[in-house]
This record gives sequence, structure tokens and C-alpha cells, in this order.
Amino acid sequence: MENKTIKGRLSLLRAEMKKKKVDFYLIPTDDYHGSEYVADYFKVREYFSNFTGDNATLVVSQEEAGLWTDGRFFIQAEGELAGTGVTLFRMGEEGVPTLPEYLLKNTKKGNVVAFDGRCMDAATGLGLEQLLTARGVTISYEQDIASPLWKDRPALPCHDIFVLPDDLVGKSLKTKVSDVRKQIKKAGASALLLSKLDDIMWLLNIRGLDIECNPVALSYLFLTKDAIHLFVQKKEVNKKVARFLKDNAVTLHEYDEILPFLQEVTVKGKIFLDRRCVNYALYKAAAAKAELVEGKNPTELMKAIKNATELKHLKETYIRDSAALTKFIYWVKKNVGKREITEMSAAAHLDHLREKLEGFIELSFPTISGYGANAAMMHYAATPEHDAKVKTEGMLLVDSGGTYFGGTTDVTRTIVVGPVTEQMKEHFSKVAAGCLQLSAAKFLYGCTGRNLDILARQPLWDMGVDYKCGTGHGVGYILNVHEGPQNIRWRYTGNMVEAVLEEGMIVSDEPGVYIEGEYGIRTENIILVRKAEKNGDGQFMKFDQLTYAPIDREALDKKYLTEKDVERINAYHKEVYKKISPFLTIDEKEWLKEVTRPL
Amino acid sequence: MENKTIKGRLSLLRAEMKKKKVDFYLIPTDDYHGSEYVADYFKVREYFSNFTGDNATLVVSQEEAGLWTDGRFFIQAEGELAGTGVTLFRMGEEGVPTLPEYLLKNTKKGNVVAFDGRCMDAATGLGLEQLLTARGVTISYEQDIASPLWKDRPALPCHDIFVLPDDLVGKSLKTKVSDVRKQIKKAGASALLLSKLDDIMWLLNIRGLDIECNPVALSYLFLTKDAIHLFVQKKEVNKKVARFLKDNAVTLHEYDEILPFLQEVTVKGKIFLDRRCVNYALYKAAAAKAELVEGKNPTELMKAIKNATELKHLKETYIRDSAALTKFIYWVKKNVGKREITEMSAAAHLDHLREKLEGFIELSFPTISGYGANAAMMHYAATPEHDAKVKTEGMLLVDSGGTYFGGTTDVTRTIVVGPVTEQMKEHFSKVAAGCLQLSAAKFLYGCTGRNLDILARQPLWDMGVDYKCGTGHGVGYILNVHEGPQNIRWRYTGNMVEAVLEEGMIVSDEPGVYIEGEYGIRTENIILVRKAEKNGDGQFMKFDQLTYAPIDREALDKKYLTEKDVERINAYHKEVYKKISPFLTIDEKEWLKEVTRPL
Repeated sequence: MENKTIKGRLSLLRAEMKKKKVDFYLIPTDDYHGSEYVADYFKVREYFSNFTGDNATLVVSQEEAGLWTDGRFFIQAEGELAGTGVTLFRMGEEGVPTLPEYLLKNTKKGNVVAFDGRCMDAATGLGLEQLLTARGVTISYEQDIASPLWKDRPALPCHDIFVLPDDLVGKSLKTKVSDVRKQIKKAGASALLLSKLDDIMWLLNIRGLDIECNPVALSYLFLTKDAIHLFVQKKEVNKKVARFLKDNAVTLHEYDEILPFLQEVTVKGKIFLDRRCVNYALYKAAAAKAELVEGKNPTELMKAIKNATELKHLKETYIRDSAALTKFIYWVKKNVGKREITEMSAAAHLDHLREKLEGFIELSFPTISGYGANAAMMHYAATPEHDAKVKTEGMLLVDSGGTYFGGTTDVTRTIVVGPVTEQMKEHFSKVAAGCLQLSAAKFLYGCTGRNLDILARQPLWDMGVDYKCGTGHGVGYILNVHEGPQNIRWRYTGNMVEAVLEEGMIVSDEPGVYIEGEYGIRTENIILVRKAEKNGDGQFMKFDQLTYAPIDREALDKKYLTEKDVERINAYHKEVYKKISPFLTIDEKEWLKEVTRPL
Repeated sequence: MENKTIKGRLSLLRAEMKKKKVDFYLIPTDDYHGSEYVADYFKVREYFSNFTGDNATLVVSQEEAGLWTDGRFFIQAEGELAGTGVTLFRMGEEGVPTLPEYLLKNTKKGNVVAFDGRCMDAATGLGLEQLLTARGVTISYEQDIASPLWKDRPALPCHDIFVLPDDLVGKSLKTKVSDVRKQIKKAGASALLLSKLDDIMWLLNIRGLDIECNPVALSYLFLTKDAIHLFVQKKEVNKKVARFLKDNAVTLHEYDEILPFLQEVTVKGKIFLDRRCVNYALYKAAAAKAELVEGKNPTELMKAIKNATELKHLKETYIRDSAALTKFIYWVKKNVGKREITEMSAAAHLDHLREKLEGFIELSFPTISGYGANAAMMHYAATPEHDAKVKTEGMLLVDSGGTYFGGTTDVTRTIVVGPVTEQMKEHFSKVAAGCLQLSAAKFLYGCTGRNLDILARQPLWDMGVDYKCGTGHGVGYILNVHEGPQNIRWRYTGNMVEAVLEEGMIVSDEPGVYIEGEYGIRTENIILVRKAEKNGDGQFMKFDQLTYAPIDREALDKKYLTEKDVERINAYHKEVYKKISPFLTIDEKEWLKEVTRPL
């Protein structure tokens, strides 16, 4: 079936490209800040490709249109690209060219490759620049060709900023700024250009609501030895916030003033920036202004290591959030087959349970509720047109979380709603085994996620099964559900960020099995890095659980588990009951007792 | 107790340094080729420090002398440095400055730091150069100050070179040279400067005996598009070898002609070299001659991936070598307490068993035979003065191997010779569990040793115990017992070499527990990387065992093992009996049956 809408849009784009003498036009997914989730205003790539996933780049030439995305989205992209004439390039698969390889192969001397330089991180842009200019291809990044063709483009989001009190964040704006200034000085720079939204929010102890599910405000920050310049839509700043910022010596500028400001400002010394987190256009402007010191944003690691106050609130928040999820599982179990439940109605029920919790701000990401084969799509989103009924067979996968004044959560449970096959039980049991083997790890200080990833995958790899994504990601505090620098991944890539697991970091632990067209299983807890004993052999580290929700006993079978796996599941379930039962009704409590009893 | 000999030598060195206006003199361990084991001729550092270990750098100033070595040698170095006035710097321990940090702290502008540029790899030399010249310190590398003070220095070793037939190596010199030339060309260079001895031997299908336990000849190689220049002591080349080299278009030069040759030769195009494997003096000479292309020696990966012919010989050789070790274990068990056995006499007996095997060339390293507390020193070497009696209690650790026309072996077993404590049993059982958990790994293609290391360490880390060294190293084929690029290690360091585990690589698997002053346990097998199934999730990989010798049942206790551990041990022992029993006497066979029976 042909998708005439997309074909029409691409044909308009191609006409415009011809007019502007552009041979290849790239439309990445990024907003101006490299945010993982982007506001509707920035969804230019979706407008021209129909692909709604979180990670992809569209490349358009007169002859071809191609979309590059990663393993999480292969199944979804196949569906959404159908009939658009856009070719899917499956990143990471054997024989599939990377985007730079594709451009190298298809461009020739004299060609022009264009993109909106604000929508591409500097690292990627500089890489393309080096690659393409070497073969006589011109890069054009100052003209935005695609967006003006977008009819009825949504407005730039604009919502009130709010301030978090010190007793919730544990460290004042002044102390954070002072710590960051020390690091900038140590790195030999006199100013810091920050455009990563969650880093700016963390540093200033403010939050916003400009991006769905990310409590951030569109902003830039330019920090010098004696000034803090914040660029936001001034309409977002109410009197209370303005007072707070003024009291902390923060100078306000309009959001879109950043480029003119950079051109006019006098910089004594060097500018520090992180080319992974600054867009290409901004990078070029800063590089034209002063010598650069490049490195990781000092805010990244500081933000990742949660302080004692944050941890206190986090632990309490995770228990309450886990209790809401547990209530939801009970509701699904009791109602499936008795009343109509769809993927979306189930998600709505869970979202409602969270909304009722004290301190709720928003969901930390749109709830993923996938029944049966839909759950094989790692980041599936049901829509009114595609909203499967939950029947009394198989499993319902629900990946969800909330942001509260007290923390941001992220948790996945796969719920048995009827008879399951032996293979489902085997896969489900092995996923649980991997999840709890990783969280039980004891390891020497100095380990990164690459050292530990195999603990989650081992039970699956032993069967010749893999999941095509990382095992874990960092989680923000009253902030984005995905943050760095730490992660749990196994594959080494040249530009990968690898960070030692430090005490106070929190990270997800989410192995899974995804059988295309059949079912998907994922079990996800958030775990906290802690110090264990220190002895002559070094400082040992371990994890504490933050998430406490039952892992469905109906799909766990001892014959697929080692003794140790069984021990770990029983110990975990014992804690689940202990911590969650105080939040439940008598009926729920009775049920939880039953489903957390030892295997 | 004062060591007057060393103090006297250092005082002579200091006088010479004063005369030559040198403030800091560095004596690394390297020969001119960065070989891991060095001929006696090169043991300058040992002469001036008394430390006999394989890895250390001595730094001498008028005020201080310091020796940097790694965790394998801490205990040994403490003993050998006693009374010399040389301070031990324990590399990798908290609060201990690295050698560059030490030099940065202690040098000042105008100082001269000197070393023999032939004895330091270029990567290290260039690092020091950058660091020290930036602060106005001069590097002097063309004067060898220390060696001339060495009275009775041994001669440069000089032994006959020999040729390996194609049916033993599986790939002719011509094919190898042609493959290497292709890679050099691909890298944009027209010549390759090779000074890593095992790489030269591998490429030319020759071997030598210039370094104890390493079947290599002192040599350099300069490979161009149309010529192969080999630099060796011509006395080492007999008529047969000369004919072979001539037939393969290899031009012979005298060993010490390499520097003059590099100064005179005309190079069209760039020279390829690997700064980790070329000494600093050679690097400077090549850089003065032509533009350099730097990268990993292409020979390194080719050599590491064993071909079908090599694997056929390896498998057969490992079985025979394992049988010799098994006979040795039997001999120890039957004779301990009945006749005098010392560490050295035990080693001599084992060495003798190997020497009797068909195709034996030499030991692959001096046999490590450590009884009781001596085994806690990872690379302990008994001497006539320190040769412990093996009593009827505790354990004897024996790490040994041979080089045969058919392969190079490396294996460690810890043998129970009498009552052992519960703690020893626990540690021994966990070491065996780790060793077999790693060898049982199934993993996706793309994994490096960093992904897998934790499988060997997990049972120990769970107890809060670690071993201060890597888990595994590559092994040469009729070549050095340690080779790269692959290894099994967990710790990430900036300059670490990380290589994907490729089918045909062999690697050691040797976890251990070392309790200073008490005992040491190590179990080491060599394992072969193989392809497992390929499916939609990717190409899975696995290991095959090459080593088959019993793991001492007397120190294995099921209460310290998981069900899976027990399964793995039983399966391994079943194979040991099947493969080794045909080589044994009736008595030995009966004993092996007993000690390999299921737990």
C-alpha cells in the first residue's frame, strides 16, 4: 500500500533541494540540544518519513531516501516505512553500510551535503565534515531546508519553569556552580558552554516541562568565572523563579539569543565544551570565538552520582512507585478475561495509579504496553488504531515510570495473562536469572558496564539468544529517564562512552527476549551502585535494588533455573513482600503473599 | 641486612651519571626488541637492583633509587630489594605514583633524564619525551651509561637458526609476505619495519634459540614492496637456512647493521611501524628517514589466529603435554613423604618428562614450582639457595610448559600433597569454578577479553577475593608463551590493547588465589576460540579445551560449588580420562580413573 502523504512531502523536499543545489539532505532526530526525546516542534524527520521511533536519520537524494535506525526499532520501522519508498538501513547488522559509509559511496566531488546544523551534535557533524570535505564534497549547515515545508508545524513548546528546594536536591545552585567552575579552571578554560538540557537543569536546581516526559526547559547556559548566563524563553520564567535566579546571580537571556550572544561576547581564555552535547552550529560559533578545550561536561558525572539527600528520596519514591506497579499487576490478573482490557486501557490504568501518588509530576516516558507479538518491538507504542486486546493467553509487557518530587523511575514487568508455552517459560526464567545475576554482582572498583554486561546475558547467550540493545542505562533524579555517563553494554565501539561505576550511580538492569511475530519478555529493575568491603585486594562494589515488584511466578520454572537463580528470586520476592505489602489492600496483600512465595 | 654489592654498583653508576651530567638514569627491562623474556646480556636492570622479575624499571638519581613493578612481583621484589636501598613502587596500588608521575614530581627545568634508547619501546619513550620536554627537561637516549660498568657481562647470545617446514606451519613464507605486503599497501605505506622477534620468526617460518625459552633469533626485518631485508648475526645462519632464505628472496644483513642501514636506505613512500614494538632509538631513526604510518603490526593478528594445520598439530601436542603433566602429578602423589622432593627436584622431574616427548625443543618458560607460601608469589622461581622441601601437607603449585615441533604449551596445576584447610578447599574450589565458567562461555562475536573476564573472577569476587593479574594471555605456535593481541583482562587502561576474540585464537584461562605468607592456588588451561551457531541474533562463539589434566579432587568440595560447577568439573574430568589414559601405565591409568571420577 502506497503512502502518498510521505511520497508527496519527499517530492516537495526534493524540488527544494534541486532549487538550492543540495544533493543529499540529512534529517537527524535531534532537537537543538541532542535530547533523547524531542518536542513535536522538532519532529521533522517523522514528518518526512512516517517513522516515529526515537533514533533515526533520514537521508534524501533525488534518487533515493534511506532511514538508519538501531535494533530496537527494526520491526517498528518496517511497518511505518511501508509504502513510503524509504529504504530501511538496519544499523549494526552485517553487510549494512553505516550512514558515513553510504555517503562515502554515493557522493562525488562537487556534491553538496546539507543539514540543519542545530539538529546534529558537533561530534557527528565534525566527523562528516572531515570525511566528506576530504573528497571534495561541501557541507552546508546554515540553511534549514525541510522545516519551512512543514505545514501546520507545532509551536516551540513553552511551559513554566519551577525551582527545586535544596532539601530535595541536597546541594545548592551556588555549591554546584562553584564545583563546576573549579573543574573548568582545572581543565584550563575560563568559560563553559552547556546546551544539554538535563545538565543545565541539574546545575541550576530548576526544572521545566518543554519536552514530554523530560522535566526540562529549552535552554542554553554560558558559565564564566563571574557570570552565569541562562538562555530560556523569558515567558517561562515567573516572578518566583526570576527572584531565585537573581538571588543566585544568574543573568537571563532570551532562548534564541545564544548565537548572537556568542558572536558578541568577549571571552578571555578558552571555552570548554563537550562536542557530543553541543550542536554543530553552536560548535562552529564557539570555535570562531575562542580556543576550545574539549572534554566531557563536568556536570555529567556530578549529576550521575546521586548524593545522600537524593538517595533518601529515591529509595522512598521507588517503593511507592513499585507499589503502584504491583497494584496494577494485581488489577490485570484479576480483570483479564472478565472485562475488556486493551494495551492502551491497561497503560491508562497504570498511569492513573501513578498520577494519584503524592509528588507526581509526569510520566518519565510514555508507558509501553505491548501484548503478545507487539511486545517483541522493544519500544512499541500502541495507538488508537493499533491497540491490541489483551486476551487470556500469553503475556503483556509493560515498561513504565514516573517523575516525582523525589525521583524518576523506570521499571518493566512482563505479566502472564493466560497459558504460556514451554519456550516462553524458558525464556522468561532465563531473563529473570540474568537480571538478578547482574544485580547480585560483586566487583572491584574500576569496573565499567562492559565488564558486567555478560552477567545479564549469560543465561540467554548459553541458549544462543540475544537482545539487540544495551542491558542498562543511567537514570536521572527528577530528570530524564536516560542519562550517562554510565551504562551496561558489552559491545565496544570506537566512540563509546565508558564510565567506571561509582558509588551513588543508579542504572537499569533490563535483559529481555524478543521473538519477532510471537512475543517479548523484559524484566527491568533499577539498581544502585554501593561500596562493599575494602580489603587488601581492593575496594569491592555491589548493587542495591531500588525496584520491588513481583516477577511473574507463572512463567518461572525451576527446571530452567540454577539453584543460585532460585535463591536469588526467592530472596528478592521476600523483600518485595516486606517492602510493598504495607501499601496494599487486604486482597492485594494476600495475592502478593501468594505470588512472592518461594519457588 | 645490607646488600653491599648492589649499593656499590649503584654508587659507580651515580659517579658516572655525575660525570655525564645526567640527573636521572632509567634502566628498563627490555632488550632491543621489547621481548618479554630477555637474554642475560640484557639484564642490566637486574645487575643494578638485584630484582630478577620479568617486569620493572629502575630509576636512579643521586638522592634515590626506585623500582617500579607490577602486582605479580610485589612479594618477590620486597625480598630481593631488601638491603639494596632501592625503594619499591607498587604499580597500580592506591597512592603510589606512576613512573611518569614520579619523574614529573622530581625533575626540574634543565635536568637531564637519560636511558639507552634501544631498551625502551617507542610508545613509552615518546610519552616521556612529550611529558618531560614540556617542562624543560632534556631526554638523552644515545648513550648507554650503565652497561659499560657491568663487569663480566655475558656475551650476546648466538645460536643456530632453523627452518620450519610448510606442513608444520600451514602457510608458506611467500604467502605470508604477500599477505603482509597487501596490508602495508592498504595502510598507505611502502615499507614495514619489524623488530618484534616472534613476528619476524612467524613471518619467515624460521626459529632461533637466542632467548631462553623463546624460540627466536635476535633480528630485525625491513620489508619493502620488492625486498625482504633480514638482520641477524650471520654466524647463526647455516647453509641450509641460507639456502631457504635465498630461495625466498630474503637479503641477509648483520644484526647490528640495522641503524646504519636505515640511515642509508632510500625509502620511496612511508614506513609502517608499531610504536609499541619498535624501540625508541629505532623509531627516531625511521622518523628521520621518512614519513611514518603507525598502527598495529599486521603480523600480530595473523600470527594470533592459528590456521587449520597449526590447530591440528596443537591439539595433538597439547594432549601429549597434558599426559606428561598427569604422569608428573601421579609421581608427586605417590612419592611425597616417601622420598625427598623439593621444588626444584619436582620441576626437574617434570622437565625431564617433557624432554622425553617427541619433537621437544625447549621449555616454554622456566618451570614455576612453588610449595606452600612460595606459591603465593605468582612468578616464583626456586633457586638452589631457596628450594623448599615438599612436605606432606598443603599444596604444590606447578606452572609449566614446553615448546615442541607441534606447538607451545602452558599449564598450571596446584597439587594437594597432604592435609589442606577448609579455607584452602574453598579457594581451590572457587578457582576451579571460575576457570571452567570462563571456558564454558558462549558469547557473541565481537566480545573481547574484557567482556568475559568476570566469568573467571565471579566466584572469587563474590567472596571478596581477587588475583592481581590478568586472567589470560595468547600463546604462540612453536613460539613465545605470551603473545597478543588478545587477552582476558577486566581493567580498562588508556593504552590497553583490546582485540576481538577471533576463531582460531588460543588464550590461557588462569584464575588463582594468592594468600601472602600462606599459599597460592592457580588452575590454568589453554582454550581455543571456536565458532558456535550463527542465527538471527548473530554469530555465537565458544571455547574448546586444549589442556586435559586432572584438577585435584582432594581440594574440591561440593559445598563450595554450584550444581553447574560440579557438572562442568565432572564433564571435564571425563574428557581428561578419555584423552589422557591411552598414554599412561596401568597404575597411572587406575589412579587417573579414581581422581577423575564424578564429584
